Amino acid sequence: MNPKLKVGIVGVSGYGGGELARLLAAHPDVELTYVTSSTYTGQPLRAALPGITTSLELTCETFDATICADHCDFVFLAGEAGLAMHVVPQLLEAGKKIVDLSADFRLEDPNIYQEWYKAEHTAPHLLEDAVYGLPEINRIAIETARLVANPGCHVTAAVLALAPLLDAKLVDTSSLIVNSLSGVSGAGRSKFGLDYHFAEINESIRPYGVGGVHRHTPEIEQTLSQIAGEPVTISFTPHLVPVTRGILATTYANLTPRDGGGGASDLYELYQDFYLGAWFVEISEPGSFPATKHVTGTNYCQIGLAVDERTNRVVVISAIDNLVKGAAGQAIQNMNLMCGFDETAGLTLSAVWP
Amino acid sequence: MNPKLKVGIVGVSGYGGGELARLLAAHPDVELTYVTSSTYTGQPLRAALPGITTSLELTCETFDATICADHCDFVFLAGEAGLAMHVVPQLLEAGKKIVDLSADFRLEDPNIYQEWYKAEHTAPHLLEDAVYGLPEINRIAIETARLVANPGCHVTAAVLALAPLLDAKLVDTSSLIVNSLSGVSGAGRSKFGLDYHFAEINESIRPYGVGGVHRHTPEIEQTLSQIAGEPVTISFTPHLVPVTRGILATTYANLTPRDGGGGASDLYELYQDFYLGAWFVEISEPGSFPATKHVTGTNYCQIGLAVDERTNRVVVISAIDNLVKGAAGQAIQNMNLMCGFDETAGLTLSAVWP
Amino acid sequence: MNPKLKVGIVGVSGYGGGELARLLAAHPDVELTYVTSSTYTGQPLRAALPGITTSLELTCETFDATICADHCDFVFLAGEAGLAMHVVPQLLEAGKKIVDLSADFRLEDPNIYQEWYKAEHTAPHLLEDAVYGLPEINRIAIETARLVANPGCHVTAAVLALAPLLDAKLVDTSSLIVNSLSGVSGAGRSKFGLDYHFAEINESIRPYGVGGVHRHTPEIEQTLSQIAGEPVTISFTPHLVPVTRGILATTYANLTPRDGGGGASDLYELYQDFYLGAWFVEISEPGSFPATKHVTGTNYCQIGLAVDERTNRVVVISAIDNLVKGAAGQAIQNMNLMCGFDETAGLTLSAVWP
Amino acid sequence: MNPKLKVGIVGVSGYGGGELARLLAAHPDVELTYVTSSTYTGQPLRAALPGITTSLELTCETFDATICADHCDFVFLAGEAGLAMHVVPQLLEAGKKIVDLSADFRLEDPNIYQEWYKAEHTAPHLLEDAVYGLPEINRIAIETARLVANPGCHVTAAVLALAPLLDAKLVDTSSLIVNSLSGVSGAGRSKFGLDYHFAEINESIRPYGVGGVHRHTPEIEQTLSQIAGEPVTISFTPHLVPVTRGILATTYANLTPRDGGGGASDLYELYQDFYLGAWFVEISEPGSFPATKHVTGTNYCQIGLAVDERTNRVVVISAIDNLVKGAAGQAIQNMNLMCGFDETAGLTLSAVWP
Repeated sequence: MNPKLKVGIVGVSGYGGGELARLLAAHPDVELTYVTSSTYTGQPLRAALPGITTSLELTCETFDATICADHCDFVFLAGEAGLAMHVVPQLLEAGKKIVDLSADFRLEDPNIYQEWYKAEHTAPHLLEDAVYGLPEINRIAIETARLVANPGCHVTAAVLALAPLLDAKLVDTSSLIVNSLSGVSGAGRSKFGLDYHFAEINESIRPYGVGGVHRHTPEIEQTLSQIAGEPVTISFTPHLVPVTRGILATTYANLTPRDGGGGASDLYELYQDFYLGAWFVEISEPGSFPATKHVTGTNYCQIGLAVDERTNRVVVISAIDNLVKGAAGQAIQNMNLMCGFDETAGLTLSAVWP
Repeated sequence: MNPKLKVGIVGVSGYGGGELARLLAAHPDVELTYVTSSTYTGQPLRAALPGITTSLELTCETFDATICADHCDFVFLAGEAGLAMHVVPQLLEAGKKIVDLSADFRLEDPNIYQEWYKAEHTAPHLLEDAVYGLPEINRIAIETARLVANPGCHVTAAVLALAPLLDAKLVDTSSLIVNSLSGVSGAGRSKFGLDYHFAEINESIRPYGVGGVHRHTPEIEQTLSQIAGEPVTISFTPHLVPVTRGILATTYANLTPRDGGGGASDLYELYQDFYLGAWFVEISEPGSFPATKHVTGTNYCQIGLAVDERTNRVVVISAIDNLVKGAAGQAIQNMNLMCGFDETAGLTLSAVWP
Repeated sequence: MNPKLKVGIVGVSGYGGGELARLLAAHPDVELTYVTSSTYTGQPLRAALPGITTSLELTCETFDATICADHCDFVFLAGEAGLAMHVVPQLLEAGKKIVDLSADFRLEDPNIYQEWYKAEHTAPHLLEDAVYGLPEINRIAIETARLVANPGCHVTAAVLALAPLLDAKLVDTSSLIVNSLSGVSGAGRSKFGLDYHFAEINESIRPYGVGGVHRHTPEIEQTLSQIAGEPVTISFTPHLVPVTRGILATTYANLTPRDGGGGASDLYELYQDFYLGAWFVEISEPGSFPATKHVTGTNYCQIGLAVDERTNRVVVISAIDNLVKGAAGQAIQNMNLMCGFDETAGLTLSAVWP
Repeated sequence: MNPKLKVGIVGVSGYGGGELARLLAAHPDVELTYVTSSTYTGQPLRAALPGITTSLELTCETFDATICADHCDFVFLAGEAGLAMHVVPQLLEAGKKIVDLSADFRLEDPNIYQEWYKAEHTAPHLLEDAVYGLPEINRIAIETARLVANPGCHVTAAVLALAPLLDAKLVDTSSLIVNSLSGVSGAGRSKFGLDYHFAEINESIRPYGVGGVHRHTPEIEQTLSQIAGEPVTISFTPHLVPVTRGILATTYANLTPRDGGGGASDLYELYQDFYLGAWFVEISEPGSFPATKHVTGTNYCQIGLAVDERTNRVVVISAIDNLVKGAAGQAIQNMNLMCGFDETAGLTLSAVWP
């Protein structure tokens, strides 16, 4: 039996970090050896994560690259935006493998990064080494990566919904619309204010980032363009819904004219084929559609699709848990691929339902 | 001082009927004199409506057209689908004015009714007399109507969002998408089962009626076609969100090529102009967008819009309370117009916020 | 017709202040003429209160006693704790009548105030003039008061539940327990942090202020002692429940030995008699119990009671909307009494249900 | 390596049965081999449990004692009340071990069963063999039991909160009050109607079974009496709170006079000692109190306590997940003891938080 992989979580007290700690406890091949939190420095892990029942002997530390490198073989970066750029170089040099859950290494072009994130990228030379961590699209590159950029939550839902259509060149790439609904945990644990104050958002539904201004837009477009083999521009509108977890993306695309083969059952088969071997993607039977509750706490993405014959448009709907397949679960899936573990290790739990 | 208008509610124990009773109590020109409920026959109004504090002397009766006509000058039909077709003829003959909250008289073509509602229309001769009750579009016809068909909740939100664009012929009518989110009260009070069981839908988001099969589709298309002056086909996807009240419709349309004039501030002015004098429609400042909580309990529709320059697409988002502007409030607004009352009478309450 | 009473709200942007603005708009005898907010100074009322549909011409000002006195006949103080002590003297001197929604003037003994609020009372000479504003207990004194201290939300629910038992000397005063559940709006609009962060409290239930340390404890005891005619000590445990509005107080008391007369129907009659003429208190039929949803948005308190024969204990359960009967509605009820208006003016709206 | 224990779930499509299926998948020593559901007979497990990701090859069967005995070594009975009485005799005769999640075998006296459940007990001869399955109180008897009656959810929370006080004879046994709050999943998956209709209970709080009439009352009393060594009568009031999962029990007891030793820190030590070796009970540090969210999805019970010096009363608050420690998790804990597995096997998952 091999010794377990020593794993660290930088930023353990956020919702992504906490979910990593929860899920890693069920992983047969790793042990959690190092956790950091600027808010809970010096306090036991339980102080940062009130629902955690494992690794209770750990203390939240201030991040220190040398100490991190001493304690870990593998590092998850789950801290604030902009942190990863600064710490990745040292950790890579120390020979560590890394999954970064922030957006720092997701966009290939540092100019696009600067345009959308309003900050200069301080490690542009590493962008080429970073592999985009959407395993269902990019599995082989991930297996040999040392640095994986874990996708955004809305991005994961949107790309998994639309990829088969673009890959098969069945739709007009100028017609793509992504209408995405997100639970509130997606906003993180440290942004306070009226926008996330219980009484203001409970029993309310509202959009945000309307008109193509949300930062997940270029990330969705970059990935879909690669799949389509041509530049793809989308309209993306995220919404906040008063649930804690879950993303439901409803995507629309115009079918291109062709001789038959565009019915719902043909597309069902297309999706089944495209996701053959993708453990965590499930295609709902024609006429059925996913609900976020059915994937809560799991790494699964459920996808349902319909063809609106009257408008010759396909509607594809995907559901994920934003903290699992949209963050921590996918990060562990990437680690599994990078380290040669079973891709599903630690990730087979059923939904916490109801 | 004129005597008050005597008003009846057929189907008072449903959510639409209950909301009528709540709102009518704040109306200066009417008195509630007759209520029916098949579930609570013989019981006091409070048994049917646990939150009601007025008209407590009323008893829920079984509907009887003659008794109804004796007690009322004006009748709201808020019962099950298919009821109105059967009772409207008698009530009209007795000289009563009627707002029907069901779908029975919304579609002008009885064949389309039969196609979507899977039942024959038993009073097709009255369809011509029925006026579609969306006051912001149809005010003048409503003022002289004896029978008003009150619009569907999703329809109200969608049409108010898109009407100015179609009226101004600014968008490609084949590009319209309506992605609509609804609270659970929209499903009514008498459909039981897993679909509306608390533990199944709490903390979950799911679509329904995907692929253009929801019955509000032909109703939206009928109204938009009249505004556009040409046949309009849409893609409409409703979703269920775990809140009690509220509809948020996010609509998408491709702007047609033109010489300037399509920016967000131009459209803001267009919307301001189109809804000049429409008391219950508020256009959010450019860059602002509505939240359903801000209209909960009110008859207001708030509309925000953005132009996605990258895709040349306009995104218009409208928020209403499905039980007020989407049902009972709009029904009272219609009554106000039909009876010569101030259009806003009984409808100026602020949102119950937070 | 008399000119309307000019009313001001100090602290309009909080939840209590916002609810005052909502309810006052339905009041036939007053007009809102002055609003202050330190957060929204210089901004229109709608910026502070996104759901308000009336008094939109008002601008939020910084509080100034002279300007306030110029613009108002009557002032509601709904600002932060400690503000009222400082501004009441000037306003009283200017001849204004005041309802203070804070705790500043609720406790008669300034030492007890200091003990529980950890601050010296700066206007102890006015405590004698302040009348405790629970109309169902204290109506006559309120009618002639110039300064009314509006009760705390938990206090209103607890006292209305227990008062008839203590008044009739039916229970052991050392046995009283108040277990109270509150919606999140009770914590106000300006306290941010994990305690009120959506994702932390959604789908969770937790107590706070356990062991008799919550500041509503001495206030409940002061009022119950006056009713009982002897010192009363209680055990009070508030809990936070993930709803926006509502308080449900479950209270327990041991019945003292007596010759008959302690059955549930006897107590039902006792409560009916005690609250004869109390418009806003409703006693549920024996065997029925209140739900907070049935009073949401209203000034009503619903009370249900049961006798546990096995333990000879009475259980009395009361439900209110913490922002209405627990704050703004009761404040208006007090104003009505102080100004000779109908006690129910502006307060007869039905619940926003469902 | 031993072959895995073959386990069956009778009534898999209810919330208790579904939770058993979820948790058993994480258990190293068992395999799920047989599931029944009268609602989903003949359908795959996923049809019954939309969030399940394991045992997908299983089909829901109609219960048949012979087939059940053929397929299973161990049976969980999670069906409707009254089922267990009828099937337990056959299964015991076939040599199977059983945990019954219903109330059929919880009450030792068949007359008390009949009094509270309004039905005759059809297998009273087996009541003596049934062991009450609260491991923290009854571990040794459970280890040798063939039939374990799994406690009710409110009972588990109440008894774990009060047991140390009664065991140490520190409180007046006539003073005990249990005020318990429950999420909606406790009402099960098959009771439909207004009481569990989303729009009726969302954003509402209400009591039920007030006045000592809830069936968990005799069960709490039976267990507490055994611990106290004398008959104990309680006042128990359950409430429904609009969350899916969770029970928070707030219990009150009068401390008996003694020479010192009743402070919060003394009691903290008492509880620590009493629950020494009880893996799933955690005592919160003095001054801290549990929240249900911190145990959601786990088998843990968190307990916090305070002494109200002013009333000489102790307040003990316990939090559990009603479907785990209150049902399926405790059932597995019982199975672990009955089968000689590690008591925590399959039950160490962290909370699904936030």
